[in-house]
Amino acid sequence: MASPIFLLSDFGLRDAFVGAMRAVLARDAPGAPVHDVLHTLPPQDLDAARLQLAAVVPYLPDGAVLVAVVDPGVGTDRGGLALRVARADGARLWAVAPDNGLLSGLLETQRSPYGTPARAEAAWSLVRAALPPAGPGTTFDGRDLFAPAAARLARGDAPEGLGPPLDVAAAVRRPPPALRRDRHGWHGRVAWIDRFGNLVSDVPAAELPAAGWTLTVAGRRLAGPAVGFGAVAAGAPLAYVGSLGTVEVALRDGDAAGAWGVALGAPIEVEPR
Amino acid sequence: MASPIFLLSDFGLRDAFVGAMRAVLARDAPGAPVHDVLHTLPPQDLDAARLQLAAVVPYLPDGAVLVAVVDPGVGTDRGGLALRVARADGARLWAVAPDNGLLSGLLETQRSPYGTPARAEAAWSLVRAALPPAGPGTTFDGRDLFAPAAARLARGDAPEGLGPPLDVAAAVRRPPPALRRDRHGWHGRVAWIDRFGNLVSDVPAAELPAAGWTLTVAGRRLAGPAVGFGAVAAGAPLAYVGSLGTVEVALRDGDAAGAWGVALGAPIEVEPR
Amino acid sequence: MASPIFLLSDFGLRDAFVGAMRAVLARDAPGAPVHDVLHTLPPQDLDAARLQLAAVVPYLPDGAVLVAVVDPGVGTDRGGLALRVARADGARLWAVAPDNGLLSGLLETQRSPYGTPARAEAAWSLVRAALPPAGPGTTFDGRDLFAPAAARLARGDAPEGLGPPLDVAAAVRRPPPALRRDRHGWHGRVAWIDRFGNLVSDVPAAELPAAGWTLTVAGRRLAGPAVGFGAVAAGAPLAYVGSLGTVEVALRDGDAAGAWGVALGAPIEVEPR
Repeated sequence: MASPIFLLSDFGLRDAFVGAMRAVLARDAPGAPVHDVLHTLPPQDLDAARLQLAAVVPYLPDGAVLVAVVDPGVGTDRGGLALRVARADGARLWAVAPDNGLLSGLLETQRSPYGTPARAEAAWSLVRAALPPAGPGTTFDGRDLFAPAAARLARGDAPEGLGPPLDVAAAVRRPPPALRRDRHGWHGRVAWIDRFGNLVSDVPAAELPAAGWTLTVAGRRLAGPAVGFGAVAAGAPLAYVGSLGTVEVALRDGDAAGAWGVALGAPIEVEPR
Repeated sequence: MASPIFLLSDFGLRDAFVGAMRAVLARDAPGAPVHDVLHTLPPQDLDAARLQLAAVVPYLPDGAVLVAVVDPGVGTDRGGLALRVARADGARLWAVAPDNGLLSGLLETQRSPYGTPARAEAAWSLVRAALPPAGPGTTFDGRDLFAPAAARLARGDAPEGLGPPLDVAAAVRRPPPALRRDRHGWHGRVAWIDRFGNLVSDVPAAELPAAGWTLTVAGRRLAGPAVGFGAVAAGAPLAYVGSLGTVEVALRDGDAAGAWGVALGAPIEVEPR
Repeated sequence: MASPIFLLSDFGLRDAFVGAMRAVLARDAPGAPVHDVLHTLPPQDLDAARLQLAAVVPYLPDGAVLVAVVDPGVGTDRGGLALRVARADGARLWAVAPDNGLLSGLLETQRSPYGTPARAEAAWSLVRAALPPAGPGTTFDGRDLFAPAAARLARGDAPEGLGPPLDVAAAVRRPPPALRRDRHGWHGRVAWIDRFGNLVSDVPAAELPAAGWTLTVAGRRLAGPAVGFGAVAAGAPLAYVGSLGTVEVALRDGDAAGAWGVALGAPIEVEPR
């Protein structure tokens, strides 16, 4: 059976971009289950894309193929790549994406039962001539380059057929982290705001003292970690360990970002107590 | 082959919440087809969730596993449950959800060729220790509790492995219906407004006289049932039997909710004629 | 194995309409992979639907079943049809839709490696009595007529079981094209605006001279074709061959429709140079 394929992009849901990728995947890897991770990423926002990659990588099944397309450089000469990733629990994953640093998100998974970090084992460049004929234009590599390459990996083809090997370290170059630490504590930021208005920070909970800590955001100080939403009354704020393994802030049954006027990138400070 | 799994939630489409659940399902129930029912439910609105459950339950294949997550109590000590449902056509379904009354929607299916109502046969509590290790935090039971439990049922594991049996009646406790009937007729409400602005009521058409009835909403009186949109001219209003089996009101080729300023919960009266 | 099924509609993502169709497909064609092409089409806009059909048809796998539901006539006596399409690369496709001209979009595919145009080989009318019992009401043929018919084709049933044959030419009647050509060049329009604000025209690039052309939109003149987004600086406009095979206009890393105030249907002129 073909391996499952997981799609993440900033293509949105207004166009048939994802539909065209699914057509190519069904054509080139018949029977491979195709799953949407997320397509409403802010356009061309590599930071947001890396964060959401980290949200799913720990849970992907062994052998899964991830296709990630956030691609401000489409139609330029930036390349594409396939990456083989070894997760600490022994699972091996494939990832296919533009060669723009996006895939470093796979390696930024937070502490989880499946271990952290994952490790990039090998990388290959994607060569167009190795793939089926493309559709018109040069602006839709999701359809013309990444989906056909992912389909080959999902059906078990060797990555060597996609193109020449790449230097792994270069392929997964990471942006400088926004997160800083000094003797006062962690200086992070609001890295994501979810549908419910919860503030997701980039401060890793596993690095904080079990005895507790104090968080400051938007002029408010909160003691953490709360064990869950049940720890406070409806409408009250709380700081807790979120589902990514980082510190989050919420208003129970409310919208913290909306109520406090907090935007993406706002600073979050966390001091050990 | 693993059974198909159907997902319904209020997780929205801005985050990778559904993607993470799909990763877990693909990991724990390889080959199980996964279908999205709906993820844009109004946050934490159990009434809306119950209505939309009722919209799909009559059509699910025998053996299907439904995962419904609308969960204002996540992170508190509310439990999770697995429910075995017998539909009147003989099909058996599984449902996995928070133990908050949400699953009563399965049993509120309207008259259909598959019979009404469905019947809850047995229920089990979900015990975390019976499932694979969870991800970080206590706020994402869709990923950490409901998806792993659903995967086990989809691959054919016995429900006894998930946790101890629960009292069925308690598990499916229903909220008091908003719908009332007196000697004048039915006093219902706008229970849903669909994408087209059509007003979906909670008044069951099967209980109304075949000879016809008169509906009042937003100060307008309409005779029903119209046999379909073709019964009136473009822009004209009509009252008809909707796809849930309840009375609906629409403007043909128009947006009744927008044009008339009707909101969710607005009263709808239906009198036999 | 059952054939893959692709869904396109204007049902949106606020309701369980797509979920109910998926339930029926999983019930009637177990194991058939189901893919969403697009569900956020502007309500009842047949032109938009035809354009997006053309975006995926060249890439669908041999044997795929396409279900397209944009159906202003639901609840009237308009019929439904199943169409067998032969693509120039030898692939055969099934399409199921209302008999309202929507499926002519399958035959309007632009030049692609898979050839153009596709050809309608045969058509059948859909007869309700040949299908499983429908759900309540007359307003949801996606669930009650098109999904059950598509499931039968996906599992390999003969189309003759769906209803009597139809005249193919009548079934795929095309609307008069908005595109005109005179001695000055092509007079097209903005046929779609994508998520990124790029202007997708209906002017086929394959008909334009390789030596280049000049495009006018919203009072701006641009030389084309640019080889891709990399041809200009960030923020600069460019005219290029888009992923549908027609001429498109974009602001690199920007939103052309928003910045220039261009709406769907705005004129686009293209003169050979």
